[in-house]
Amino acid sequence: MEQRITFFTLGVKDLTASIDFYENKFGWKRAEMSNENIVFFELSGNYLSLYAREELAKDATVDSAGEGFKGFTLAHNVWSEQEVDDLIEYLRVRGVKVMKEPQKVFWGGYSSYVADPDGNLWEIAYNPYLKND
Amino acid sequence: MEQRITFFTLGVKDLTASIDFYENKFGWKRAEMSNENIVFFELSGNYLSLYAREELAKDATVDSAGEGFKGFTLAHNVWSEQEVDDLIEYLRVRGVKVMKEPQKVFWGGYSSYVADPDGNLWEIAYNPYLKND
Repeated sequence: MEQRITFFTLGVKDLTASIDFYENKFGWKRAEMSNENIVFFELSGNYLSLYAREELAKDATVDSAGEGFKGFTLAHNVWSEQEVDDLIEYLRVRGVKVMKEPQKVFWGGYSSYVADPDGNLWEIAYNPYLKND
Repeated sequence: MEQRITFFTLGVKDLTASIDFYENKFGWKRAEMSNENIVFFELSGNYLSLYAREELAKDATVDSAGEGFKGFTLAHNVWSEQEVDDLIEYLRVRGVKVMKEPQKVFWGGYSSYVADPDGNLWEIAYNPYLKND
């Protein structure tokens, strides 16, 4: 089995609100293959998808009920502590909820968290050990 | 904000069991920067990380309690219906739980789901509209 994730799909409660968040707060552009039911954002090598939570559960043949911590985070890394601070301010003025203010963390990095409309956690981080390539 | 996910981190209940799953069922190789507390698998353009669920929640400053559907899926796409069938059989004989048998789906593809030890849902899919590039 090749080492590949093609899509990370978020099952969202309000697709319109989520699209607004990713397009107008994050400022991302949807991929052409998006349609009114599912929206894709092209990353480097794979896609983030937004799809209705009920439909996603149905597709996977599981119950859609669930609450609390979802057991995952998404990290968006930048290349300096200053870039973390700047991005958090950029998001804050657009009304994005900052869950953890930028701070040095035990593993040697500098990190913060914001939440999307479903409470999905995005870490905005600088990792001095990660190469920008 | 650039269109990028650097890490997709799963907060897992039993790190040893999860590492066993990804290394010995999926057959993936951990990245060198892994350590005893966090394991990374390099994808094309980003990483999947495994980290203790409690620690991940703590890092994000949220309560770790949570149950039910986590509101996300990960898709591993392959390039034909036969490849879906073959990969599902490969995983099934290794003891991986098949949640949905391979079948044609309404959007024109062919898809199935398996679960990891935390119930994280992996779609194994063929999408005839997706280019292999």
